[in-house]
Amino acid sequence: MMNQPIGVFDSGVGGLTVVKELFQQLPNESIVYLGDTARVPYGTKSKSTVIKFTLENILFLLKQNVKLIIIACNTSSSLALEEVRKYFRIPIIGVICPTAKEAVYASKNKRIGVIGTPATIKSRAYEIEIKRFDPDIKVISKATPLFVPLVEEGLINKPIAEEIVKMYLKDFKNENIDTLVLGCTHYPLLKPIIRKVMGSSINIVDSARQVVYEVKEILKAEGLSNSSKIRAFPKHKFFVTDAVENFLKVAKHFLKNSLRDIRKIDYGF
Amino acid sequence: MMNQPIGVFDSGVGGLTVVKELFQQLPNESIVYLGDTARVPYGTKSKSTVIKFTLENILFLLKQNVKLIIIACNTSSSLALEEVRKYFRIPIIGVICPTAKEAVYASKNKRIGVIGTPATIKSRAYEIEIKRFDPDIKVISKATPLFVPLVEEGLINKPIAEEIVKMYLKDFKNENIDTLVLGCTHYPLLKPIIRKVMGSSINIVDSARQVVYEVKEILKAEGLSNSSKIRAFPKHKFFVTDAVENFLKVAKHFLKNSLRDIRKIDYGF
Repeated sequence: MMNQPIGVFDSGVGGLTVVKELFQQLPNESIVYLGDTARVPYGTKSKSTVIKFTLENILFLLKQNVKLIIIACNTSSSLALEEVRKYFRIPIIGVICPTAKEAVYASKNKRIGVIGTPATIKSRAYEIEIKRFDPDIKVISKATPLFVPLVEEGLINKPIAEEIVKMYLKDFKNENIDTLVLGCTHYPLLKPIIRKVMGSSINIVDSARQVVYEVKEILKAEGLSNSSKIRAFPKHKFFVTDAVENFLKVAKHFLKNSLRDIRKIDYGF
Repeated sequence: MMNQPIGVFDSGVGGLTVVKELFQQLPNESIVYLGDTARVPYGTKSKSTVIKFTLENILFLLKQNVKLIIIACNTSSSLALEEVRKYFRIPIIGVICPTAKEAVYASKNKRIGVIGTPATIKSRAYEIEIKRFDPDIKVISKATPLFVPLVEEGLINKPIAEEIVKMYLKDFKNENIDTLVLGCTHYPLLKPIIRKVMGSSINIVDSARQVVYEVKEILKAEGLSNSSKIRAFPKHKFFVTDAVENFLKVAKHFLKNSLRDIRKIDYGF
């Protein structure tokens, strides 16, 4: 099983921030990525719909013979992880728990801000997880629905991006938070602007690094790591449900590496 | 057939601007509305995916025994209408042609601006249609991808809305257009801001009124109108592919009438 790939899926292109971390932290591992670009975004949709989409994505990755699945999408992790973990044997890792853990570790004054899609925030998944680690922490959450289209449209360097970030984050200014969770895989691309708006003293925690750190631990514990003693030739595959060219156009903002072997699949809808 | 309903579909909630016009212009007609809210938006997706979604929506409406179908979605009209008209017997009306016709009629200086989703603008559907009526007209097109999330998130009364509208429309200021086509059913909700930014002298043309006017003519010509001599009791049905409550939350911005009989359907994805 050690040579089998790691499966990663996201509603679209945002999960490539996790792939980037996998390349860095686990360079021997092969990756199968699935972006459900025909049905993106998930963050504005209902729980039952997100669970259905998540199940389909997992079944597809299982057919690709993966040894572990990372749900890189915060919305899917918030709304569907608990449900789908009941069904499948292989380890399924969401982004909420590792990110929450890191935020708790980073906060000194026990006041943490969380931003995410409307569905993630409505689920209160981060709040529940953070309070599981430390019930005394005050969590202030806010949905920031324009951030995903802002990133998807490649507007991150335009003045309007700063205006939109300011609009959403101004409420945090009076909340005296010392840590901000970027609860969506798209948001790391807005990090420089968020940093500028929130000031240099705030801890900004994103999902990608933490989830890969956790994956590393699990692979080790389960004896599933592609051991570095064997000379490894990792093979990466990328699948999308909408046209490949649209995916590539946005993917370049996330991943400098040139992406090869991208295929469009069809769920039959 | 006269008593059969008119079918209307959109990628989401935007097509309710067309329903509103149907209520006003054709008060005797029953309506079946379908919003594909599980897969919204269409405007950032590829042609083949939009055609596939469009075919499924039409097949669903045919099962509801409709006598005519309105594709209220500009993206779907731009990318899929030509293709799907080959397959089906009943009249299928898109929004591009009637809207283009109205814009040509409205423009005196023969310089027309068009705004829409990335997919609609990329298809050049409006430009082609406008030039079919008058090849001398200069068409200046621009994709305005943040407008849909702006409307969907109910941010139309926030200062950020004006900033975003200004950002996208500033290029038109130097183009000396006298007419602007709102090439997306979401955009009429931004009309007051667009009017403020573009000035009072510009003609703003949207799809809803024009398409219903055309539908009226076709029903008459084909003998399909629900004649006003018969006392009519129109029955309206609304279907969505994601949760009903999410639809209702946004629908109230589009339609003041209380919506009854809304059901979630499942395409089996």
